[in-house]
Amino acid sequence: MNPAATTSSVPDFSTSDGLIAAIAQDATTGEVLMVAWMNAEAYAETLRTGRAVYYSRSRGKLWQKGEESGHVQTVRAIYVDCDADAVLLKVEQVGAACHEGYRSCFFREVTQGGVNVIAPRLVDPAKVYAKHKQP
Amino acid sequence: MNPAATTSSVPDFSTSDGLIAAIAQDATTGEVLMVAWMNAEAYAETLRTGRAVYYSRSRGKLWQKGEESGHVQTVRAIYVDCDADAVLLKVEQVGAACHEGYRSCFFREVTQGGVNVIAPRLVDPAKVYAKHKQP
Repeated sequence: MNPAATTSSVPDFSTSDGLIAAIAQDATTGEVLMVAWMNAEAYAETLRTGRAVYYSRSRGKLWQKGEESGHVQTVRAIYVDCDADAVLLKVEQVGAACHEGYRSCFFREVTQGGVNVIAPRLVDPAKVYAKHKQP
Repeated sequence: MNPAATTSSVPDFSTSDGLIAAIAQDATTGEVLMVAWMNAEAYAETLRTGRAVYYSRSRGKLWQKGEESGHVQTVRAIYVDCDADAVLLKVEQVGAACHEGYRSCFFREVTQGGVNVIAPRLVDPAKVYAKHKQP
């Protein structure tokens, strides 16, 4: 078993395939930036480094936020919910939290009339991610 | 197939067992209140009624927030994330969002020294939920 999971039951990684939901919220403005997943290892790495580390379900591996883009999240506080299967991170976000170049992943509002983009794009994703492919 | 899922791909209920994550945030203060799940039917009911309706994974059925406690959430705006598998609800929360009687489910902070309750309990859960069992 994972050491981090056995030393503490909060958060509780024993359900939902060992994953918990992790919400990142701007520590200053209160803007909700994104929601992602953590396994026990990602959570332990977040605690150890002070930077948000998530678990990518699609890639099946840890993912340090900003490892390609430079858009890291410094964690200022962590809160755990009543069921211990979700955490809220108050973070300092460098640049865009969203891989599409927006400050927040929630850059689209759903209205009766359709889906509207309600925030400016801060960076061009093609440039942000391409530069890391050219060492 | 579910009608709601075929008429719109945003949100996208085609992955993760037909569920999306739904974050409720206080529309006035920006406080993150809770995170839960929606299937297409819960989402459609939320749009139709203007009140947050979630899907309970443990009970396997829809759950109108506040149906027992009276602590309903009136939805003021809905945002969808880049992957279309999570929504952010800006809500007006009556009373306590948390079934343990706290305003937010994230009432515990995780620190180096342990887990600390950082918010007052607004209501006694035993009283809130018991009264609905005595018609």
